Amino acid sequence: MQYIAPLRDMQFVMHELLDSQSHYAKLDEYHELDIETINSYLEAAADFAQSVLSPINRTGDLEGCTFDEGEVTTPTGFKQAYEQYCELGFAALNAEPKYGGLGLPTSISSAVSEIMGTANWSFSMYPGLSHGAIQTIEHHGTDEQKTTYLEKMNTGQWSGTMCLTESHAGSDLGIIKTRATPNEDGSYAIKGQKIFISAGEHDLTENIIHIVLARLPNAPAGTKGISLFIVPKFLVNADGSLGERNAVACGSIEHKMGIKASATCVMNFDDAKGYLIGPKNRGLNCMFTFMNVARIGTAIQGLAASEFAFQGSLEYAKDRTAMRSLSGIKEPQKPADSIIHHPAVRNMLLTQKAFAEGGRALVYYLSQFADIVAKGEHAQAKFADEMLSLLTPIAKAFLTETGHEAANMGVQVYGGHGFISEWGMEQNVRDTRIACLYEGTTEIQALDLLARKVLGSQGKMLANFTTIIHQFCQEHQDDDRVGQMISTLTKLNKQWGDITARIGMQGTQNADAIGAAAVDYLFFSGYVTLGYLWAKMATVAYARLDKMCESLDVEHALDGEYGFYDAKIKTAEFYFAKLMPRHAVHVARINSGHESLMAMEVEQFAF
Amino acid sequence: MQYIAPLRDMQFVMHELLDSQSHYAKLDEYHELDIETINSYLEAAADFAQSVLSPINRTGDLEGCTFDEGEVTTPTGFKQAYEQYCELGFAALNAEPKYGGLGLPTSISSAVSEIMGTANWSFSMYPGLSHGAIQTIEHHGTDEQKTTYLEKMNTGQWSGTMCLTESHAGSDLGIIKTRATPNEDGSYAIKGQKIFISAGEHDLTENIIHIVLARLPNAPAGTKGISLFIVPKFLVNADGSLGERNAVACGSIEHKMGIKASATCVMNFDDAKGYLIGPKNRGLNCMFTFMNVARIGTAIQGLAASEFAFQGSLEYAKDRTAMRSLSGIKEPQKPADSIIHHPAVRNMLLTQKAFAEGGRALVYYLSQFADIVAKGEHAQAKFADEMLSLLTPIAKAFLTETGHEAANMGVQVYGGHGFISEWGMEQNVRDTRIACLYEGTTEIQALDLLARKVLGSQGKMLANFTTIIHQFCQEHQDDDRVGQMISTLTKLNKQWGDITARIGMQGTQNADAIGAAAVDYLFFSGYVTLGYLWAKMATVAYARLDKMCESLDVEHALDGEYGFYDAKIKTAEFYFAKLMPRHAVHVARINSGHESLMAMEVEQFAF
Repeated sequence: MQYIAPLRDMQFVMHELLDSQSHYAKLDEYHELDIETINSYLEAAADFAQSVLSPINRTGDLEGCTFDEGEVTTPTGFKQAYEQYCELGFAALNAEPKYGGLGLPTSISSAVSEIMGTANWSFSMYPGLSHGAIQTIEHHGTDEQKTTYLEKMNTGQWSGTMCLTESHAGSDLGIIKTRATPNEDGSYAIKGQKIFISAGEHDLTENIIHIVLARLPNAPAGTKGISLFIVPKFLVNADGSLGERNAVACGSIEHKMGIKASATCVMNFDDAKGYLIGPKNRGLNCMFTFMNVARIGTAIQGLAASEFAFQGSLEYAKDRTAMRSLSGIKEPQKPADSIIHHPAVRNMLLTQKAFAEGGRALVYYLSQFADIVAKGEHAQAKFADEMLSLLTPIAKAFLTETGHEAANMGVQVYGGHGFISEWGMEQNVRDTRIACLYEGTTEIQALDLLARKVLGSQGKMLANFTTIIHQFCQEHQDDDRVGQMISTLTKLNKQWGDITARIGMQGTQNADAIGAAAVDYLFFSGYVTLGYLWAKMATVAYARLDKMCESLDVEHALDGEYGFYDAKIKTAEFYFAKLMPRHAVHVARINSGHESLMAMEVEQFAF
Repeated sequence: MQYIAPLRDMQFVMHELLDSQSHYAKLDEYHELDIETINSYLEAAADFAQSVLSPINRTGDLEGCTFDEGEVTTPTGFKQAYEQYCELGFAALNAEPKYGGLGLPTSISSAVSEIMGTANWSFSMYPGLSHGAIQTIEHHGTDEQKTTYLEKMNTGQWSGTMCLTESHAGSDLGIIKTRATPNEDGSYAIKGQKIFISAGEHDLTENIIHIVLARLPNAPAGTKGISLFIVPKFLVNADGSLGERNAVACGSIEHKMGIKASATCVMNFDDAKGYLIGPKNRGLNCMFTFMNVARIGTAIQGLAASEFAFQGSLEYAKDRTAMRSLSGIKEPQKPADSIIHHPAVRNMLLTQKAFAEGGRALVYYLSQFADIVAKGEHAQAKFADEMLSLLTPIAKAFLTETGHEAANMGVQVYGGHGFISEWGMEQNVRDTRIACLYEGTTEIQALDLLARKVLGSQGKMLANFTTIIHQFCQEHQDDDRVGQMISTLTKLNKQWGDITARIGMQGTQNADAIGAAAVDYLFFSGYVTLGYLWAKMATVAYARLDKMCESLDVEHALDGEYGFYDAKIKTAEFYFAKLMPRHAVHVARINSGHESLMAMEVEQFAF
C-alpha cells in the first residue's frame, strides 16, 4: 500500500485543535516556530516517507533481517534509506543543538515519527530506539560521556539501544541477573544475556551504543539494585575515533510475527567494558525520566496502525464491488455496488478513522505537555508532567489496542484478500501486534495508570484532567449542535471519579480488586479521553464552519475545506454513537468485582 | 505447543450436557452408539492428533507449501500423516456406508474434527475440504456419479474441492464469470479462473475432484444462473482407473498470513471437461443444502483457536514468574509469583476457557441438530433444520471472532515471547484469522442471521430458540445457586425478541437500519446463546455435585471429578460476571441507529 501522509488532518490537530502558535508562544525556546516552518517539516517528512520508506515496507517484511555469525543484515534498501534519513536531518530533530541536534520540540518530532512510522514501522525503529539511549546520556551522562557519544548519535552516524529484558525478566526488571563488576580503570565488566534488543546489531551505523541494566556486586535485591551502563559496540578512543571491538555480540535474531525488518537481537555481554551512567543502584529511576516519551513513541505505533489500515481499507472499499446496497442501487453502471455503501463496511472505516484521528489528537496533545515538561516554567512544567504521567499509559495502551483492532478491520474490509500478503493489511496486523506488548504490556500500563498514577496521587492526577474536561463541558453546554456529546461527556467525566473512588475503597479491602479492575479502568479512561478530544474537535470544526458561512463566497464542496470540517463533525458523531457506548461494558465489568477472577484454583483450570 | 485433547470436557458436553444416549435413542440409525464406542473414537482421534498432527503444526507453518510448475508440495510429514489418517478410517467417518463410509453422525465427526483441527488446522483442511465435494455428490449426483467418485473420496484416496470464488467475486457469487459450454458428448467445457481454492492442488492424493460453479450459455444473470459441475483433475475411465489429465491446473499458490501448510490455489480451467451435477441454474440452491454443515466446520476453527490458546496460555501462566501478587506473596520459594496469580492474566485464561468450553457446547449442540436433520423423522427434522439455520451463522461468526480474540490473548499472556514464533501463540492468531473471512465473513453471517433467518421467518426461527431458553429458565428459577444467571438470562432472552421487533420496524422504513444493526445483533445473539449453554452447564454440574455429595466416600480433590464440576460452575459464573456484560454495548449500538454510519459522503472520508 502506498502511504500518503494525512497532512491536512495533522495540521488541523496541531494548529487548529491544539493551537500550536499559542502553545509555542509560551515557551521561550520555541516561540519562533511559525505554522509555515512547522508545515515545511511535515512536508519534508511526508516526501521522504512516501517516496523512500513506503516502497520498502512490504519488501522489508518479505525479506526480513538475516543473521550470519554475529552480523545482522537489514533488508534491501534500508541502508540507503537510513543514510538519506540522516542526511535530511531527521535523526537530529529534537536532540540538543549543543550536540548537533535541531532542538525541535517533541510536538513536532512526534508528528514526524507518525509519518515515518506509518510508512514503515520497522524502519522507524532503528532511529527510534536511539532516542532512549540519547536521552539517557543527555539526562544522566557526564560532560565527557555527552561529548564522546551524543554528537555522532544525534547525526545518526552511531545508533543506540536499551538493553533491559532478560529471558526470565520482562515486566519484572527487579529480577534481572546481568552483573557489572568494577575494573581497575573505573569501568565495569558487564556479564549477562539480554533478549528482545531492537536494533542490537545491524548494518546501518558504524557503532552501536548500548545502555545496559545490570547489577553491581552486593546491590540490593529487586528494582533498587539496578544500575545503568554505557556499553559501546566499539570502544571510543580519546580522539573520538573507533577503538577495539567490545566483548558484546549478537547471538541470534528472533523469528517474529511481524516487524520482520527490525532486528530483534539476543545480546551476549561477555565481560564487555561498560561505563556507569547516573548514580549507582538508581538505574530504574533514571529511566523513568524519559519513559513517558518512549511510551508516546509506542502510542504512535497504535495511531499509525489505525491510519495505515484506514488508508488501505478506504481505497479498497471504494473500488471493490459486492452486492447491492440494502437501501437501493447506488451505482447502476456497475454490476454491484462498491462495498463502501454497505453499513458494516462503513462501520469499520469510520472506526479506523475515529481511532486514527482521535489517536492523533491524543498523541499531539500529550506531546505538547512533553514540550512544557522539557522547556516550560516550573509550575507549568509540574502540571504538564502530571498530565503526561496520567495520559501516557492511556495513550500507550488504548491507542495500541485500538490500533490493533483497526488493523484487523483492515483485513476484514478486504475479505479473503485481506489474508493475502500482497495487499499489506495482514502485515499491518502482524507489525502492530507487538505494540500492545513492548514498552510495558497493556496490563502493565493499566496498573501504572490505576495503581501508581491515579490512586498513587490520591486522585489528584485524575482531577487535573477531569477538571479540564468539566470546564470544556461547561463552556459548550449551551451549544445545541454538540449538546448530546457534551451531556454524555459530562456524565462520564463524573462517573470516572466515582468509579475511581469505588475501586480505591475496594482496594483497601483486597488489593486484587485493583488488579481485577485495572484493564477495564484503562479502557474506560481511553474512551472518555478520546471522547473529550472528539467533542473538542467537533466544536473547533463548527467554529470554522461558522466562520466560512459568514463569508460571502462560501464553498460547500464536500471534497474541500467545507467537507473536511463537516467530516470531522460526522466522525465525532459516529464516535459518540458507536464507540463511546463501549465504556458501559468496562463499567459493568469493574462493578462485577474480582471474585469470579480469583475463585478458580490453579489446579482446576484444566482437566 | 503439544496439544492434548480435552477428552473429559468433550465427554461432559456430549454425554452429560447434551445427553448423547437419549439423542441417539431417537434416531434409528444411531441408536446403537453407546458411550464407550463414542469415547473410543475420541480417544483414537486424540492419539493420532497428539502424536502425529501436533508435532507437524509448527514445522508446517515454517515450511509452508511450495509451488513449482503447477505442482504443489505439502510440508514435510503431511503426506505420511495423511496416509495414516486415511488408514485409520478418519476420512470416512460420516460418509455413507453404501460408498465405503462409516456412517457416523455429525455429532461424532464434529468432535473428531475439533481434535484434528486444534492439533493442526492446516492439515485438517485437506480432508475437511473434501467433505463439501462429497456432500454435493451424495445429495445431487446421479448414481453413476456416486459410483464413480464417492468411494475413493470417502477412503481419502481422492480428495475434493469447492471452486466458488473468483478474483472479483467472493461474497457476491452472483457475478461470477466462469463459463460452461456444452460438449457434444453431454459433458461441458469449463473455462475461467477460480481463486482461494483450498487444496486445489497438492501431493496427498492421486486425484482431485473439483466442484465448480459456472454459468451455462444464456443462463439468467445473478445467483439464479449458476450451475455446478464435477471437474476431476484426472478423468476417470469406465473401469474406475485414472484416465487422461484434464485441462485444469494450478496457476500459483497464495502467500498468506497463516494456515501456510494449507495450499490456497489459483485454479485455471482451460476448457476443462466437466459434468453437470444437480439441476441447471440451481447450483447455489444445491449448495445451501449442506452449507450449514460446512459452516459448523468453520465454527470449529474458532473453538479450536480458543482451546489451543487456552492450553498454551495456561502452561505458560503456571510456569512464568513476574512480580508478586497484589494481594500478597503466593509462592515464597520463587523470586516472583507465577503470573497465573495476577487477575489480568486470569481474566485472559478464563475468557479463553469460557469461549473454548462454551464454543464446544454450541458446536456439539448444533451437531446434534445436524444429526436429526439427516436422520430424524419429518417433524423433528424440520424443527432441527430451523434451529440449525438460526444457530449456524451465530456459531460460525461468534465462535471465530471470539476464537480470534482468545488467540490474541494467548500472545498477550506470553508478553514479548508471544510475538516470537517458537511458542506457537502467534501462529494460532495467524491461522485462525481466516476463519472470520472464509465460508462467509462475519458481516455476511450477520446479515444471514438477521435478515434471512430471523426477519425472513417473521421471527419464527428465533422464537423456536427463545422458547427453549424460556423453558430452561422457568425450570431453574427456584434454584438459588444459579439464580443470578437465570434472571440475567431471562431478561436478555426477552430483550432478544424486543430488539428484533424494533429492528424489523426500523427496517421497513430504511433497509440500511438492518445492515447497520446486523453485526451487533449477531454478537448479542452469540452472548445470549453461550449464556444459555453456560447456565445449563452450571445446572448440570450442580446436579452432579449434588449426587457426589450424597455418596459417602465423597472426594473433594480439586484436581479430580469434584474439581471438574466445581470449575465448570466457576467458569459459568465468570462468563456471567465478565463476558455477558458485553451484550450491553451491542444493544446500545443497535439503539443508536444507522444515521451516524450513513451520513458521511464517499468523497469526504479522507483529505
